Amino acid sequence: MGSLNSQPAFVLVRPQMGENIGAAARAMWNFGLDRMRVVGPRDGWPNTRAVAMASGAGRLLDEAQLSDDLPGALSDCHYVMATTARPRGLTKTVLTPEAAMAEARARIGRGERVAMMFGPERAGLENADIAQANAIVSVPVNPDFPSLNLAQCVLLCAYEWQRSAGTATDRVEELAGTSPATGEEVDHLARHYEERLEQAGFFFPETKAEGMRLNLRNMWSRMPLTRADVQMLHGILRQMVRWKTRGE
Amino acid sequence: MGSLNSQPAFVLVRPQMGENIGAAARAMWNFGLDRMRVVGPRDGWPNTRAVAMASGAGRLLDEAQLSDDLPGALSDCHYVMATTARPRGLTKTVLTPEAAMAEARARIGRGERVAMMFGPERAGLENADIAQANAIVSVPVNPDFPSLNLAQCVLLCAYEWQRSAGTATDRVEELAGTSPATGEEVDHLARHYEERLEQAGFFFPETKAEGMRLNLRNMWSRMPLTRADVQMLHGILRQMVRWKTRGE
Repeated sequence: MGSLNSQPAFVLVRPQMGENIGAAARAMWNFGLDRMRVVGPRDGWPNTRAVAMASGAGRLLDEAQLSDDLPGALSDCHYVMATTARPRGLTKTVLTPEAAMAEARARIGRGERVAMMFGPERAGLENADIAQANAIVSVPVNPDFPSLNLAQCVLLCAYEWQRSAGTATDRVEELAGTSPATGEEVDHLARHYEERLEQAGFFFPETKAEGMRLNLRNMWSRMPLTRADVQMLHGILRQMVRWKTRGE
Repeated sequence: MGSLNSQPAFVLVRPQMGENIGAAARAMWNFGLDRMRVVGPRDGWPNTRAVAMASGAGRLLDEAQLSDDLPGALSDCHYVMATTARPRGLTKTVLTPEAAMAEARARIGRGERVAMMFGPERAGLENADIAQANAIVSVPVNPDFPSLNLAQCVLLCAYEWQRSAGTATDRVEELAGTSPATGEEVDHLARHYEERLEQAGFFFPETKAEGMRLNLRNMWSRMPLTRADVQMLHGILRQMVRWKTRGE
C-alpha cells in the first residue's frame, strides 16, 4: 500500500458519475497509485456504481479520503497541481503531465506531500479550485478535438508517474528460453548454405558468384538470429536436400 | 488529414464492441492520429455503435481501411508493432510505448510506413497475429493489476506518438542505400517457404507442425529484411527446387 511519502494523491473534485470514479480508481491502480481523495461527490459516498466499476481496484475506494470541500482535502499537502484542458487566464505555471510527475517525484523525494486535482466530468475545475493549486497540468491534446474524459486524464497522469520512475526498460529482447546465436554458429550456417547452394548451381553466372556469396554471408550476419533460428534454418536446408534425394 | 507518410496506422484486429472502436477513434484523434485500419470486425462494417461513440472523431471510421485478414491490412507496411500485455514466448523485441513511438517516428522520417496492431477486447492478439509483427509493444502496467482496455491502450500509444514529436532524435541510418521489405513482400516470402517446405515434408510430425509454422513465420517478421534479402531468399528456394527437379 502506498502513502503520500511515496506517491501523489489523486483528488477527484465533485465527481458526478460513480462509474467514472470507479474507472479513475482502475486507471490509478494500473500504474501502482492507490491514494485517492474525493471531494463532495454528487451522489454521496460510498457509491455502489463506483464500487462495481472499480472491481479489482475497489480497495482504493474503501481507503479513499472523503472531504466536503477542497481545503479539507488539501490541508496536509505541500504542493498541489490542477489538471485542466483550458488554463483560463490565471497566472500559473502550466506543466505537461511528464513535467508534472517529474516535479512530483522530486518533491516527494524531498519529503513533501503532493496532490493532483481532477475536476468534475462536464465542466472541469473552476477557477476557484485552480486558484488553490501551485501549478496547472495540461495534457497536450489535439486542439481541434480535446475530448479526454476523467478516467483518461487520470490514466495519462498515472502513466506519467510510473514513467517518471525510470524503471521501465525501453527495449528488451524476449528470448524465451533461447539465446542469440554465436558467431561460430552463424558461420556454420552460412557455410552450410553456401556449400549446398554451390551444389545446386545457385551462384551463377560465374562473374556474379563472388558478389552473391558476399551478399548471402552479409545477410546472415546482419540478422538477429537466435540459436533456435539457426537450427530451423539448418533444418530447412537439410529437408530440401532430403526432398531432392527422395526424388518424388 | 494524415497519411502514412506522416503517422503510423493503428490497426484494430477483430474488434468486438462497436463502442470500443468508437472510443479508440476518439483516443487516436485526441492526439492527432487519424489513420485507422480495421481487420475482421465482429459485428460487420460500418458499425452504428462505433459511429455513435466516436462523435467528433467519426471521420476516422469513415476513412478507415477495412480488411478481411491481417496480411491484407499490413501489406504496404514496412514495420509493424503488436501491442500485447503478455509477450508469450515468441522471440521478438519488446518495446515500451515510448520507445515504440520513437522507433515509429524515426522510420517514418526515413520514408517507411509503420503500423501498430491492437487485439480484440477479451483475449488480445493471438500468437499468429504477433508472428506477423517486427516488434512487440507492452505498456508497463502494475503486474498486480493489468486492466487496460482497448481504448486506453490506444490512448497511451497515441499520447506517446504526440510526445515523441518533441523528443525524436536522429538515428544512424542502418540500412543506407537499401530499401526495407514491405509487409506484403515478407508475407509472400513466408508463404513461398511454407508452401515449398510443406511439399518437402518439413512440417513433421503433425503434432508439431503448427508450432513450426508459427516459429518460421515469426522469424521472417522479426528479421530486418531488405528487398534485396527477400529476392535472394526467394532465389535460394527456387534454386533448390530446380536442383531437385533436374534430379542430378
